[in-house]
Amino acid sequence: MPFFASFVVTNLSLAGRKETNGNNQRSTFRVLSDGFSIFVAMGTLTAFNLEHVTAILSRTPASLDALLRGLPDFWTHNKEGKDTWTAFDIVGHLIFADRTDWMPRLRRILNDGESVPFDPFDRLGQARESQGKTLDQLLTEFVEVRDGCIKELQTLNLKSPDFERRGKHPALGTVSVSELLATWAVHDLNHLHQLSRVMARQYQDTVGPFKAYLGVLHCDAHGA
Amino acid sequence: MPFFASFVVTNLSLAGRKETNGNNQRSTFRVLSDGFSIFVAMGTLTAFNLEHVTAILSRTPASLDALLRGLPDFWTHNKEGKDTWTAFDIVGHLIFADRTDWMPRLRRILNDGESVPFDPFDRLGQARESQGKTLDQLLTEFVEVRDGCIKELQTLNLKSPDFERRGKHPALGTVSVSELLATWAVHDLNHLHQLSRVMARQYQDTVGPFKAYLGVLHCDAHGA
Repeated sequence: MPFFASFVVTNLSLAGRKETNGNNQRSTFRVLSDGFSIFVAMGTLTAFNLEHVTAILSRTPASLDALLRGLPDFWTHNKEGKDTWTAFDIVGHLIFADRTDWMPRLRRILNDGESVPFDPFDRLGQARESQGKTLDQLLTEFVEVRDGCIKELQTLNLKSPDFERRGKHPALGTVSVSELLATWAVHDLNHLHQLSRVMARQYQDTVGPFKAYLGVLHCDAHGA
Repeated sequence: MPFFASFVVTNLSLAGRKETNGNNQRSTFRVLSDGFSIFVAMGTLTAFNLEHVTAILSRTPASLDALLRGLPDFWTHNKEGKDTWTAFDIVGHLIFADRTDWMPRLRRILNDGESVPFDPFDRLGQARESQGKTLDQLLTEFVEVRDGCIKELQTLNLKSPDFERRGKHPALGTVSVSELLATWAVHDLNHLHQLSRVMARQYQDTVGPFKAYLGVLHCDAHGA
């Protein structure tokens, strides 16, 4: 994003934080009234919206189910190399993160604010939890666990001022409810991105000269 | 992949090409009998398998439907920047490629071999075809078009010797049926990879400091 756009988005974000009884949309208009009307689309683009987040969260399990259930192990149980994950591992990770990470961290912020940091995430925990299960079992489990999370999230009935509440991440420092919830949705997309790469990688030689046209086969995982 | 593994995979591939009345699995064993048993898993990993290909092809439309149907336009009609695609554009592209690219190219190889090159792919064709349609319409269309392609592919009843038949790509030169079909499946995964990135990008600022942990937000599209 060019510098001037980052500047405006930062301003919109600051305006959003100062607004404690409105919503991001109103903040956008406040900034606009200061003369930034050219950036209305950009302001809208990056504004947090709980419905946008739950729209992703509620669709990921069914999408992965449609993609992976019954797929040959060739695609689901091979990985990219040493110390990387298979599709099976990724689904296990998404379940484990729903159980131990997102909602527990949201509750921590709402109960304790920044006074008690989040528990660190156990990045290898899903290996224990997935052991002895089939991928089809994990896919069913993901639908159920995610459904429970969304129901609890809706019960909390969070409103705009809640989105600005802060917690303490053990490594990243202060983070807001909106950042945590936005990350939950992007985390789904991040693992969809990883999953498509891990699967594609199994055919990196089989595609022959077409490899030149397939960006996914040139993805280096971005250090993730 | 380390050098020695590439060397063996290349050998397996050559063995596969020489085998005109067997299949890849048999070629693998022939090489193994020459003393490469340690590489059995690697040989199997990269061998072309039509059932593996159709397993992906038959699942992609339903997976995209589960992910995208009814999703707010925020996720489906925003792109990454100038001259890039939205989720809507990507689904249109997959439909257009099924109609004008994969099966027509396969037919071209089976009918004309290398004597008549493939028609060049019209990379902007989907814009015309998608015009005036909703994303939900495109998702339904993709299920139908893909279903028709898979039925036709199955009717062809291709066997191992057919996978080695060659055609002429207008830019890449000689390509085999197995390379074309493997690429069709990886092309689905390539656009799933792109789609997850385009959607995630809409929240690249909204996630705040979590951006550091989200590889998808650091993906530069690999020149694709």
